[in-house]
Amino acid sequence: LIMDKINFILSDNRDLNGLSVMVTAGPTTEPIDPVRYITNRSSGKMGYAVADAAARRGARVVLISGPVALNPPPGVEVINVETANEMYSAVMDRFSMVDSVIMSAAVADYKPKITANQKIKKHESTLTIELEKNPDILAQLGKMKERQVLIGFAAETEELVNNAMIKVERKNLDMLVANDVTLPGAGFGTDTNIAKLVFPSGRIVSLPKMDKLSLANHILDELVILRKGKE
Amino acid sequence: LIMDKINFILSDNRDLNGLSVMVTAGPTTEPIDPVRYITNRSSGKMGYAVADAAARRGARVVLISGPVALNPPPGVEVINVETANEMYSAVMDRFSMVDSVIMSAAVADYKPKITANQKIKKHESTLTIELEKNPDILAQLGKMKERQVLIGFAAETEELVNNAMIKVERKNLDMLVANDVTLPGAGFGTDTNIAKLVFPSGRIVSLPKMDKLSLANHILDELVILRKGKE
Repeated sequence: LIMDKINFILSDNRDLNGLSVMVTAGPTTEPIDPVRYITNRSSGKMGYAVADAAARRGARVVLISGPVALNPPPGVEVINVETANEMYSAVMDRFSMVDSVIMSAAVADYKPKITANQKIKKHESTLTIELEKNPDILAQLGKMKERQVLIGFAAETEELVNNAMIKVERKNLDMLVANDVTLPGAGFGTDTNIAKLVFPSGRIVSLPKMDKLSLANHILDELVILRKGKE
Repeated sequence: LIMDKINFILSDNRDLNGLSVMVTAGPTTEPIDPVRYITNRSSGKMGYAVADAAARRGARVVLISGPVALNPPPGVEVINVETANEMYSAVMDRFSMVDSVIMSAAVADYKPKITANQKIKKHESTLTIELEKNPDILAQLGKMKERQVLIGFAAETEELVNNAMIKVERKNLDMLVANDVTLPGAGFGTDTNIAKLVFPSGRIVSLPKMDKLSLANHILDELVILRKGKE
């Protein structure tokens, strides 16, 4: 904890000066009709903390945000989106202009095949919703990336490290922040996380429980190292 | 607008002294798995405004709230719930102890038949979710009510008055607040509403666009009259 405080104070050294960072945050919402929608548990706090910390450390930051109840961090350009397709477009528009991408949004994997124009009336005792896959933004960036550092997030409920290693490789990530959301103090909407940082080399950094701003700074410390490896 | 202000100032007359009011607010969330859920668009602002105004006017208020990003109104007992079934239980537990019920929550009509214990992996390009009906809390209260005044809310996207009249009759309501969410200034998350108050007699009060606290006070003005009719 003392290290975290020192870390945070040291962050005034603006060691991200000159970097251009894109951060995604929050859930996406996938409408069933004008009233109902499918979404993911995500407060957006983690992504907002990363964007805030990156800006404080001197980076130029664009934050692509799903619907959340948070104030925009000072000095950060915020672009608000609702659906995964909107997030996809916003991210793709800006990808070539940034050198670092931190994808903390909980993008919905599936969306309803059909969105009704009018509120569906509840005449039937059961209802079946056909879903189809949304674009996998992170995997797409992994295919496109050239000089960029690409960092993903994963909320897992089982086999954390195993699932994380598979994702790092399959999506061509430079780092994955894996969060076991079943642990106390690591779940959705909490102010703390218990994360493991997983790298393609097989290196794994297991962090203790810490607040999201401290975790954001740990992630950005690794980003500094990863960026140096690309130069 | 001036009338609204006067209305609000006059509300200091504590004309709801001695009344015991239950208010529901916000959406409910219906889990698909630990990460994904189905929900309804609802900020909870309307119900919180009703609870706040009722308490200011002297009522004893219990607010059964789905997940929202709002501060509890002063002097109101708040009970937090997530699913429609939890809201059903919380409402039923307290129904016999109150004389007025204002159901502004956007309760999900349907919930997934099966909630997965682990996060569903996105191996398949499509996914089908089977939904079944949640209990209709408002209709159930309509069947049970004795001396209580029962007020419902409806968000409609078409045939507002027709749908509202059907609901008032079928659910045995004393009043329905019908909101055309397709109108500008009346949609979800806005700070204003454009409401029609629909009564079983066929009386309809069409209100202009107004902020939610003003609408809350109009509703409570009608509650005072409706309660007198029950004595």
